[in-house]
Amino acid sequence: MTDPEDRLRDLHLSLPEPPHPIGSYLPAVQAGDLLFLSGTTCYTGNGFLHRGRVGSDLTLEQGQAAARQTAINLMAILRASLGDLRRVVRMVKLNGYVNSAPDFDQQPAVINGASDLLVEIFGEQGRHARAAIGVSDLPGHIPVEIELIVQVRE
Amino acid sequence: MTDPEDRLRDLHLSLPEPPHPIGSYLPAVQAGDLLFLSGTTCYTGNGFLHRGRVGSDLTLEQGQAAARQTAINLMAILRASLGDLRRVVRMVKLNGYVNSAPDFDQQPAVINGASDLLVEIFGEQGRHARAAIGVSDLPGHIPVEIELIVQVRE
Amino acid sequence: MTDPEDRLRDLHLSLPEPPHPIGSYLPAVQAGDLLFLSGTTCYTGNGFLHRGRVGSDLTLEQGQAAARQTAINLMAILRASLGDLRRVVRMVKLNGYVNSAPDFDQQPAVINGASDLLVEIFGEQGRHARAAIGVSDLPGHIPVEIELIVQVRE
Repeated sequence: MTDPEDRLRDLHLSLPEPPHPIGSYLPAVQAGDLLFLSGTTCYTGNGFLHRGRVGSDLTLEQGQAAARQTAINLMAILRASLGDLRRVVRMVKLNGYVNSAPDFDQQPAVINGASDLLVEIFGEQGRHARAAIGVSDLPGHIPVEIELIVQVRE
Repeated sequence: MTDPEDRLRDLHLSLPEPPHPIGSYLPAVQAGDLLFLSGTTCYTGNGFLHRGRVGSDLTLEQGQAAARQTAINLMAILRASLGDLRRVVRMVKLNGYVNSAPDFDQQPAVINGASDLLVEIFGEQGRHARAAIGVSDLPGHIPVEIELIVQVRE
Repeated sequence: MTDPEDRLRDLHLSLPEPPHPIGSYLPAVQAGDLLFLSGTTCYTGNGFLHRGRVGSDLTLEQGQAAARQTAINLMAILRASLGDLRRVVRMVKLNGYVNSAPDFDQQPAVINGASDLLVEIFGEQGRHARAAIGVSDLPGHIPVEIELIVQVRE
């Protein structure tokens, strides 16, 4: 089994402080062995990595970078919730909402920026079910919002 | 622990009849100790509280009022499902979809209208993970649709 | 209890090969007794059944047909995951995203095309909680994307 904390070191990734919720909610809530992570942004500690619609304001590559940054923030929330990423049993379900120009239809390619990072960190345990959806706007005009369900050791 | 039935009385809130599904589905389905509530509207027994897009047809405040009414309807579904709100262990995950004008980006502030009510009724057990998403339209042109996962005593 | 494999024969429905994911994800992931199916399309083995927005490019009836085809594909994924549809305890939660023309608000009627099929196949066990959402675009300009949570025998 892949050790996610070792993998983060191999990837030269250090997790940031988890972003603060921008509303009346918690970053994550556990019920049984499922941890539900809130819809998360590409916040960087210095504003959002990008703002705007993918396919008009932003390129596909910028959307993918935003999705990857969002996944890094989800991992920060996950570690803050669990203490140690080794408590993850597996990634279960990821939903990615892409702020899309009217005729942009490559939402799966955008969200791969997040999905691929989960597999880089967790190996087979990082593979997950997913939905990728195009939406007309998102909080703060962010390009991507991602939520995640993770199975954890109790 | 907060008693949600007492809190409803303190808040002078009486729950309405739960709204009927507007399609081939059930208001709520339980699997194990998780109760999944369907996407719900701001129905009032006398039509929808509001219709239209937040940020153009409707103000932020009207969107928040619609979100609060939607949360009241979710509580009505919850009580009809459980018999008594004291069977709730905790609120787990809320997803709020906001019918948004093209450049409206304050979805979290709209959905706070629902999230805050859950905390008023359930206290700490009412705090939840959440996603707030902007969408281009919703059934019946309602301003807000909200779905909810609740952990319950079996 | 309805036997879903018998019902498929009665309905003269043979399930296709499950569609391949169009991104870095799995068609379905199980956690405990919940199986989470990824957002799925109206793929037919010969391209998508329909492409475009319901309410402008496509009629309501075409949207319903796309939703029904999507549900057939979900059943194909379900059988590939479980080996036998009789391992289903019940349908739990379906989310349907409808690629909607700007003023199209009949998302529930579109998604009934999928919900009704689940009840035809599984009877009472096929009835589910649901959310129907209008969105501005979807992967490959498909008219409908549907994801599903199913309770299964372990």
